Amino acid sequence: MIGIDAGGTKILGVVLDPNRAVEHELRTTWRERTTDATVELLIEFCRELEKAVGEVQAFGFGLPALVPSARGAIPYSTHLPLEGVDFRVRAAQALGRPVAVDNDVNCALRGEVAMGAAVDRQNVVMLTLGTGIGGALLLDGQLYRGARGFAAELGHIPIAKDGPPCQGKCPGRGCLEALASGGALGRAARELAERDPESTLGQALLAGAEIDGALVTDLALAGDRQAQALIATVGEHLGVGLAAFANAFDPELILIGGGLARAGELLLGPARRVLEQRALPAIREQVQVELAGLGERAGAIGAAIMAAELCAREE
Amino acid sequence: MIGIDAGGTKILGVVLDPNRAVEHELRTTWRERTTDATVELLIEFCRELEKAVGEVQAFGFGLPALVPSARGAIPYSTHLPLEGVDFRVRAAQALGRPVAVDNDVNCALRGEVAMGAAVDRQNVVMLTLGTGIGGALLLDGQLYRGARGFAAELGHIPIAKDGPPCQGKCPGRGCLEALASGGALGRAARELAERDPESTLGQALLAGAEIDGALVTDLALAGDRQAQALIATVGEHLGVGLAAFANAFDPELILIGGGLARAGELLLGPARRVLEQRALPAIREQVQVELAGLGERAGAIGAAIMAAELCAREE
Repeated sequence: MIGIDAGGTKILGVVLDPNRAVEHELRTTWRERTTDATVELLIEFCRELEKAVGEVQAFGFGLPALVPSARGAIPYSTHLPLEGVDFRVRAAQALGRPVAVDNDVNCALRGEVAMGAAVDRQNVVMLTLGTGIGGALLLDGQLYRGARGFAAELGHIPIAKDGPPCQGKCPGRGCLEALASGGALGRAARELAERDPESTLGQALLAGAEIDGALVTDLALAGDRQAQALIATVGEHLGVGLAAFANAFDPELILIGGGLARAGELLLGPARRVLEQRALPAIREQVQVELAGLGERAGAIGAAIMAAELCAREE
Repeated sequence: MIGIDAGGTKILGVVLDPNRAVEHELRTTWRERTTDATVELLIEFCRELEKAVGEVQAFGFGLPALVPSARGAIPYSTHLPLEGVDFRVRAAQALGRPVAVDNDVNCALRGEVAMGAAVDRQNVVMLTLGTGIGGALLLDGQLYRGARGFAAELGHIPIAKDGPPCQGKCPGRGCLEALASGGALGRAARELAERDPESTLGQALLAGAEIDGALVTDLALAGDRQAQALIATVGEHLGVGLAAFANAFDPELILIGGGLARAGELLLGPARRVLEQRALPAIREQVQVELAGLGERAGAIGAAIMAAELCAREE
């Protein structure tokens, strides 16, 4: 099975063998493209993987988009020009074999359930903290997709009703994504860099560096106190969201993935503290907050598993 | 089947005939009691209902509490002194027949699904707006109870991370319950009454009336502009929560019940407007926001249906 995780700046593909071990892996970066070129590149990427391992039975794609459960066009995509495209149909026509498509975070959670940090768990909330925040829900052992397939947009929970406007095409204000994402961290860091040219971040700005969440994370891990404080604030905002998810879902486990998860306890420590302060006591006692286990491969692995499940259903 | 809905100030019991029609109904009010007296009164209430209709097979109770899915004591109860009580075991011993127990809003949603506003729906968010806010979730056709049975505490979603402390035993701040409940409406009305003695609410306060959500609702329905404005503000706060639930659950339907629902469009109009402004466009287009259909009987009817389902499983 081939699984593809299509992010905003990179594509990662894996081939899983029948024992679900990663047999082959391929990655590339891409820049902004037209819709047709984006679809074509994803198809080409599958063909490239097949050159290495031979023909596979089915393909799975994780896309940063709202993916309808039934047939139909993608109504919303965060980073890729796939809106209005019925990607499942186009990919299946081009590849001539079954294709499964889902939201990228749903795929990542499938991967974590199959062989990562959520094995044997029944009720799991997953968040991926990157430029934006993606979400996925395992409820009573099933991936929850909602009435139309658009559920678990957990980055778009407002935690500050009068807060800053959210990012991208979200019309909300004070969403978790606006306050606890890598994008939010980058904005806070740029403000600090401009306000305090003496700071490490200020020096980096003067030296022409791009001030973003990744840089803040690097500096924080290297011991910079101001970068650590910025991450702690983002972690506290995250904790407010975790309290919401604890009270709404009574989960066993909340998994945190995505690039910002590299910050580890610098982020999770403050988040857990706020969760414990704010969630209902009977609920919070039992909720674990952990880092995702499969790292950046989770989405591609989960997409390949989704393809295998599709074949199993069709047989 | 007998179903009991035990609220903070009243108990409502129904007997359903085999066609699920309400055969008999009984209600009473109660005041603060000890744990033992509370349990005993609920048992007596069942016996009273049986005097009218003859012996039934099983009993269902909806309690304003976190009710564990498995055996075990209630860890948290909003209005009744039932914490630490394994109510299911005690009631079954006293009544000598099968007993099913669940959260009161879960019972109300069961009732709405069986014969109210949620018939044939698969993905429904229910909120009951009273002194507090209760929640229940029907996800992919199943009532969602979470890992331990404590899920859907939807009143305790923070929508204003730096907002006022929440009510009761919730350690949160700016929870939906703190800003969009009947309790929140009553607090805002008392502030207005003190600030503006000329207002209808101010006059009511001077006349010694209790200024609460019910009074504001009565005045608003009678045309008082200031009372209507207070309800509109609560409705806007509710709308922020509805945007969160829309984005998290992608539901077909959000049902609003509880005493505050009497305000009807005075409340739902502003709530729908904010939902439309703030939820992701692809999601909000499809979400209906409606009043619950069974009114105050929903919980007792749902509790009786739960008892019938328990019998069906045991047969």
